[in-house]
Amino acid sequence: MEERKKSVNNQTNGASKTARIEAMSDGTFAIIITLLVLEIHRPVAAEGSLGQQLLKSWPSYLAYGVAFIYVGVIWLNHHYVFVHLEETDLKLNWINLGVLGMAALIPFPTGVLADAFTSGNLEDQKAAIVLYALIGGMMSLTWVPLYSYLSKKADLLKTGMATGIFKAQVRKPLTGIFLYFFSGILGWFVHPVIAVLIFIFMVSYYARTSQGVRLHHKTAK
Amino acid sequence: MEERKKSVNNQTNGASKTARIEAMSDGTFAIIITLLVLEIHRPVAAEGSLGQQLLKSWPSYLAYGVAFIYVGVIWLNHHYVFVHLEETDLKLNWINLGVLGMAALIPFPTGVLADAFTSGNLEDQKAAIVLYALIGGMMSLTWVPLYSYLSKKADLLKTGMATGIFKAQVRKPLTGIFLYFFSGILGWFVHPVIAVLIFIFMVSYYARTSQGVRLHHKTAK
Amino acid sequence: MEERKKSVNNQTNGASKTARIEAMSDGTFAIIITLLVLEIHRPVAAEGSLGQQLLKSWPSYLAYGVAFIYVGVIWLNHHYVFVHLEETDLKLNWINLGVLGMAALIPFPTGVLADAFTSGNLEDQKAAIVLYALIGGMMSLTWVPLYSYLSKKADLLKTGMATGIFKAQVRKPLTGIFLYFFSGILGWFVHPVIAVLIFIFMVSYYARTSQGVRLHHKTAK
Amino acid sequence: MEERKKSVNNQTNGASKTARIEAMSDGTFAIIITLLVLEIHRPVAAEGSLGQQLLKSWPSYLAYGVAFIYVGVIWLNHHYVFVHLEETDLKLNWINLGVLGMAALIPFPTGVLADAFTSGNLEDQKAAIVLYALIGGMMSLTWVPLYSYLSKKADLLKTGMATGIFKAQVRKPLTGIFLYFFSGILGWFVHPVIAVLIFIFMVSYYARTSQGVRLHHKTAK
Repeated sequence: MEERKKSVNNQTNGASKTARIEAMSDGTFAIIITLLVLEIHRPVAAEGSLGQQLLKSWPSYLAYGVAFIYVGVIWLNHHYVFVHLEETDLKLNWINLGVLGMAALIPFPTGVLADAFTSGNLEDQKAAIVLYALIGGMMSLTWVPLYSYLSKKADLLKTGMATGIFKAQVRKPLTGIFLYFFSGILGWFVHPVIAVLIFIFMVSYYARTSQGVRLHHKTAK
Repeated sequence: MEERKKSVNNQTNGASKTARIEAMSDGTFAIIITLLVLEIHRPVAAEGSLGQQLLKSWPSYLAYGVAFIYVGVIWLNHHYVFVHLEETDLKLNWINLGVLGMAALIPFPTGVLADAFTSGNLEDQKAAIVLYALIGGMMSLTWVPLYSYLSKKADLLKTGMATGIFKAQVRKPLTGIFLYFFSGILGWFVHPVIAVLIFIFMVSYYARTSQGVRLHHKTAK
Repeated sequence: MEERKKSVNNQTNGASKTARIEAMSDGTFAIIITLLVLEIHRPVAAEGSLGQQLLKSWPSYLAYGVAFIYVGVIWLNHHYVFVHLEETDLKLNWINLGVLGMAALIPFPTGVLADAFTSGNLEDQKAAIVLYALIGGMMSLTWVPLYSYLSKKADLLKTGMATGIFKAQVRKPLTGIFLYFFSGILGWFVHPVIAVLIFIFMVSYYARTSQGVRLHHKTAK
Repeated sequence: MEERKKSVNNQTNGASKTARIEAMSDGTFAIIITLLVLEIHRPVAAEGSLGQQLLKSWPSYLAYGVAFIYVGVIWLNHHYVFVHLEETDLKLNWINLGVLGMAALIPFPTGVLADAFTSGNLEDQKAAIVLYALIGGMMSLTWVPLYSYLSKKADLLKTGMATGIFKAQVRKPLTGIFLYFFSGILGWFVHPVIAVLIFIFMVSYYARTSQGVRLHHKTAK
């Protein structure tokens, strides 16, 4: 049935066949990014102590900064996938919903982690680390079907694009899953700060590879 | 007057006549999907008990997952309707607002239902079931005018599209209305869990038929 | 300076010169509409009394319904203005920001009004009526510069469009301003319910005229 | 690597190469603008005193108005930059994320400032002034790389556009950084009201220069 429908889709969708999935994705990323500001609560301070209260809540400023960059990096990765696409189909729409759904969760473990490090309790920090590692790992996981599906569907790509560029990308989220799993183990059994360093490394890793990991064969040229 | 205006509309709107209604709809779906995360509250836990608190709030994670898939499915259904449209008119804009308005309500009964099952009180669960069934049924109801109006307005469809494809779809929301009504009755008089099973079935039913129910005559080919 | 810039604008913006202002407006309307759901609070009920609590909060359901239709109607009016536009300029961008800013306020007086009618205190109801009338009147006011500016700028309209269609529309918001002012007076000095009836009439008035008030000369043909 | 990627980008992106970055930006601005309304809290008043409560919260109405205009002005400035762009690249995407991230913060210091002036404590007002000046200055700072990068990348501009139009704009955010720094100093050591006056001047300055500061050479013609 999918095959039949797609042909209808081809036939009817004249101009930009990925316009709506991109619009919905962009809208979602825009809202995720903006909702992060709601995490910065206006301080309820005793009269005359507003300045101190503002200085004290530096962890929420840091959390805002890091989470903002993280969601921005995810948007960039998403952007550079769809740049290569000519059209979408039902399965890709579903995979994309999975990517968006996990990305939309990012503010939640970030906030929990910031709170745990503000309060300073080691047990809480370990629990927050495991939560963050779990959601980070699942977020990475949603990119595996995205890349591997596109590496098999040449007809969704723009003319002249080789599916090889997506095959090479699968190792990006696989690296992510491994490192988030590893950071959860280290954070729980050794020390939470080690995990936080890996988390920050992950954001920079996804940032540096947002346009795709280096290709050995210049398939994309 | 409507006839006259539509002719103006035809005349003036050169390129993509459904661009704005799709943009507004995509924006709305993107926000509904993202607002669901706000339902997952950061746990306010006694020091050292964050891990247990996070484990305890599993119903809100489940509610997030199910509601996310549900809204995603509604977006897919909406997407596959508008793929076939060439332009919109005043009545379709109104019908579409109805669809969006009921879809935007989904997070509310989902949260009430999750709360009721966490607290465990049978009377509350029954009340939550009836609320969910009512809103689920009304959400389905808004798709009846959408499909039946389009099945009568060939001039809104893309060239070569037969109105028959929409005529066949009317039975989808009608099935939904009947099953939501039925689940409300069963949930109230027999047991709430039966209704929950039907609710989950409904999400999968709308998911499987998001590209339209199978046609007997290949009118869409 | 405006003249010079506009010529740059003309020169550089190839395809859709109103794309971004429409995208921003659609995004804003989509968010206003979706934020309305946040007004419906999940009831905090004693165990076993959820059903009664849900029934008691009918005013917030009604407020959601009415405000949703109102914002939808404003979107429709906005839609049918921009359908006729070929491009935008700085002044129109500013006027449009005013329209969006006042529309974004609608949920606030609606909620205050619903609360006042739930609590039942006559003084509070009168205050809420005046607030609603004030914001409704100001919302109407923002449409006066929109219509009157477009009635003087033929070069912003699509080819073949006469500015007369906008000149005729100015009386719509003027009627609105007068009726909101009148409803505030009646609600304060006579009875709040009279004002509520006029408020509902206003939504239906703007709904019926969303595609423009009837023209005497068929300038738009 | 960037060079290689950009060539792929050029090759694959047929029609509107800035469509997605503009859509994401517009979505973000639309949400920032709409979230401002959430700052106006529905008054929790003793029965019969709603009217007085509504009058008392005039600072939040003012804060809404000013912040709305400010974000609108930032959107206009953003709009008139992208009107001149033919395409985007990785670095511009990053710079743009920085602009959006700082713009999204605006509601936070605005609310803190409004609260401080309502409570009336001079120490708190000074702290709020410094916070506002800091974020205003950083917001201005994000526009320096935007203008200076575009003044060096002629291949991102539309055909016939000279990079000189962007070179001339760099002094706009530089003026902003200087004045926000200056207002922080004056507000802390002299009087907060002086800083507020400079803040209001800044909104009007960015408003008046939203289409670019006057050019000596008519490079943009």
